[in-house]
Amino acid sequence: MEHVKIQAEQAKKGSFELGIMGADEKNKILLAIADALVENSKYILEQNEIDIKNARESGISESLIDRLMLNDQRILGMASGLNQVASLKDPIGEVINTTKIPNGLSIGKKRVPMGVIGIIYEARPNVTADAIGLCIKSGNATVLRGGRVANYSNQAIVKIAVKAAEQAGMPTGCIQLLNDVSREAATYMMTLNGLISVLIPRGGAGLIQSVVKNATVPVIETGVGNCHIYIDDSADFDMGLDIIYNAKTQRTSVCNAAETMLVSKAIAKEFLPLAFEKLSEKNVEIRGCKKTCEILSGATLATDEDFYTEYLDFILSVKVVDGVDDAIEHINKYGSGHSEAIVTSNYFASKTFLDKIDAAAVYVNASTRFTDGEMFGFGAEIGISTQKLHARGPMGLNELTTVKYIIEGTGQIRG
Amino acid sequence: MEHVKIQAEQAKKGSFELGIMGADEKNKILLAIADALVENSKYILEQNEIDIKNARESGISESLIDRLMLNDQRILGMASGLNQVASLKDPIGEVINTTKIPNGLSIGKKRVPMGVIGIIYEARPNVTADAIGLCIKSGNATVLRGGRVANYSNQAIVKIAVKAAEQAGMPTGCIQLLNDVSREAATYMMTLNGLISVLIPRGGAGLIQSVVKNATVPVIETGVGNCHIYIDDSADFDMGLDIIYNAKTQRTSVCNAAETMLVSKAIAKEFLPLAFEKLSEKNVEIRGCKKTCEILSGATLATDEDFYTEYLDFILSVKVVDGVDDAIEHINKYGSGHSEAIVTSNYFASKTFLDKIDAAAVYVNASTRFTDGEMFGFGAEIGISTQKLHARGPMGLNELTTVKYIIEGTGQIRG
Repeated sequence: MEHVKIQAEQAKKGSFELGIMGADEKNKILLAIADALVENSKYILEQNEIDIKNARESGISESLIDRLMLNDQRILGMASGLNQVASLKDPIGEVINTTKIPNGLSIGKKRVPMGVIGIIYEARPNVTADAIGLCIKSGNATVLRGGRVANYSNQAIVKIAVKAAEQAGMPTGCIQLLNDVSREAATYMMTLNGLISVLIPRGGAGLIQSVVKNATVPVIETGVGNCHIYIDDSADFDMGLDIIYNAKTQRTSVCNAAETMLVSKAIAKEFLPLAFEKLSEKNVEIRGCKKTCEILSGATLATDEDFYTEYLDFILSVKVVDGVDDAIEHINKYGSGHSEAIVTSNYFASKTFLDKIDAAAVYVNASTRFTDGEMFGFGAEIGISTQKLHARGPMGLNELTTVKYIIEGTGQIRG
Repeated sequence: MEHVKIQAEQAKKGSFELGIMGADEKNKILLAIADALVENSKYILEQNEIDIKNARESGISESLIDRLMLNDQRILGMASGLNQVASLKDPIGEVINTTKIPNGLSIGKKRVPMGVIGIIYEARPNVTADAIGLCIKSGNATVLRGGRVANYSNQAIVKIAVKAAEQAGMPTGCIQLLNDVSREAATYMMTLNGLISVLIPRGGAGLIQSVVKNATVPVIETGVGNCHIYIDDSADFDMGLDIIYNAKTQRTSVCNAAETMLVSKAIAKEFLPLAFEKLSEKNVEIRGCKKTCEILSGATLATDEDFYTEYLDFILSVKVVDGVDDAIEHINKYGSGHSEAIVTSNYFASKTFLDKIDAAAVYVNASTRFTDGEMFGFGAEIGISTQKLHARGPMGLNELTTVKYIIEGTGQIRG
C-alpha cells in the first residue's frame, strides 16, 4: 500500500503552500479547471463511455448507469459549480475573538484549512469536480477515492483538472485521485492519520458504515436521512397534506425526503384518509401500524424494521401516536438525526418539538426537503452531516476548515 | 457486554431532560455535588486508601501513587472546581446566525448539548469530579471509564455525586461510571454509536492511540505534546534563554512543556553554550544533532526517534537548523500539533512561522506553557485537542456542545 501512502504524502506536502494562498490565487485555479473541463469535454465523455460500457456489461442497474453517465450538460454543470464556488467568500484567514490576557499575551483564533481532506464516494463522477472545487477554495489538498465503476471518468476529470490547476499556480500534489481502486486501498487510506486530517464519505448507508467502522482518521458521517413528519392534533389539515405530499414525493431519492409520517390519535381517523387519498396520486405505498391499518384498508402492516428504513422510494411508514411527546420519543429512537418536522398550530407543541428532537434540522410547519446547503444559503455543500462532532447539517466551505490559536508575546514566561 | 450498554442507555435516556435544563437548575446540581463531596470526604478517603493499598501491593510506581492519592485538600480542590464551573456562563441555548430566506423560512443555529459524552481516563480520581462538572454544566450526560487502579475512589465519588445530584433535581441516569473496568468493557463502550455521541480520552499516548484505533464513536484526540522552541538568528538571547528554560523546566510532566529546541545555525555557536549553562541549573540532559554535539561537549547524540519523543522529563533534544523555513519543516514533520514557539525579532520570520506551522497553538516570543484552558480564559478544560475536527487547542464548555438548525415556517414546501 506504499503507493497509496505516497499519494497522501504528496497531498500533504502540497497542502502547506495551498493553505496560505489568497482568495484571488485560489479562484484563478478554480476558473482554470472549469474552463479546462469544458474544453476537454470530448475526452471526458470518451472515457465516461468506457465506464458506461463496462457497467452495462457487468449488469449494473439503469438507475446507477444514470448516475454514472456524463453528457455535455453535466460537464457544463460541473464547470458552473466551480465558478459558483469561486464566487463564494473565502473562509480562510479570519481571526476570531482576539483577546489580550493580563500578562499582555495576545491570543487570537484563526480560521485555517484542515490540511488534507479525504473523500470517499460512489458512482457519480460530478462529485469529483465538486469536491476539488470545495477543497481548493477552502485551502485544502484532497485525496479522492471514487467508485470503481466511475474510474475512467474520474481519472479523466482529475487529469484535466490537475494540469489546468498547476498551470494556474496550484502547488504540485494538491489533487490526488487514488489510482488503486481496490477495497484494500480504500481501507488503507482510512488509517492514514497524520497525512489525512478528515474523511468525508459520500454515498449510501453501506459505504458510510464501512468508513465509520474501518477509519482511524476522524470521519464526518453524512447523509442517511430517515426523516419524519409529525401531524399534531392542532395541525392545519391542508398544510399537513401539502407538507407530507411534498416531503414524500417531490423527490424520493434524496436524504431529506420523508420516510415516516406520525399522526396524533386525536385526528388520525379524520386526517389519515385525506393523506392516503393525496399520496395515492403518486401511488405511494403505505406501511402502517395496527391502528393505521384499522383506519386505512389500503395500508399494509409495517414491521419494526420499516420504521428504521430510509426507503428512498414511493413508500411511507405511518404510525398513530398519543401526541407530541410520543412522537418525539419515536423520532429520537428510530430517526437518523437528519431532518424532522412538526405540523401544528400549538405554541407549546412547537416549542417542545424544537427543544427535544435530537436532529441536525428541526422544522415547524415546513417540508424537510429544505435541508441542503443551497437552501440554507451556503452556496454549495460537500454533504449533510448527521453526526454531532465538528459539523451538523449541511456542510459548506466553513465546515472544511479548522482553527489554530495565534499567540503573540514579548517574552512572556509562565510563573 | 449488555451491562455496559444498559449504563449507556440510561445516560442517553437522562440526557434529553438534562439537555433542556436552565443554568440555575444545573448550577444547583453542581453546588450540591461539591458540598456532598466535602461532607463525605471521610468515606471517599477510606475507599481511596483501598486503591492505594492495592496499588502498592501490585508494585505501582510512587509517581502513579501520587496521582492516585486523595487527601482533604484534593477533595476541597474537586469541590472548588465544581463551584468554579457553576460560575461559568452556560453555553446552551444561544441561537446564532438566524436568517430569513426568500420564501419566509426562518433558519437559526442553536447551541445544544452533544447528548452523552464518554470519557476514558487513567489513574487520577479528580478527573471524575472535573468531568462530571463540565458535562453537567454543558447539559450532557456522561459515561465515565476510569482507570482500574482508581476504581474504589471513582465509585465512591460517583456514588456521592449521583445521590446529591438527583436530590438536587438531576434526571436519573445522567452520571454513569462503568462498573466493569475490564479492557473489553472499555473497548465495547467505544463502539456504542447512537448512544455515546463523542469519546474524549484523557491520558498518555498509549491510551489515546488505543481509543483512536478501536473507537467507532467519534473521538476527540487530546494531549500528546511534542512541543518545540525555535531560536531564530534574530532572537533576543535573554528572551530565548528565559523561554526555553521556562518551557522545559517549569513543569516537565505536562503536555505544553518543550521537548525540542531548534537553533538557527547563524547563532548556534554563540547561543547553545549559554542555553546549556542555563539548563544545567536543572540538570537538563541534552540530546543533540551532530552539529549540536560539536558545539556542546556535554551533549549526547540524538536519534531520529528522540525528535519524535515527548520526554515529560528533564531531557531536551536540540537541533541546529538552517533558518526559519528549515525549523518549520522539522516541526511539521516531528511535532504532535500541540504548541510551537519562535523567538525572533524579525517581522517576516514571525509571520511565516504563524502562517505555516500546523499546530493547535503557535507562539511568537512566549513560552508554550501557556496553552491551557485557564490561561486562555475558558475557566476550566476537559483536555487539549491536538486534532483538527470539532475542537483544537484547550477545550472548555463550548467544545462540549454541538448545534442544531431550527427552522420555523408557515407551511413552506419545496418547488
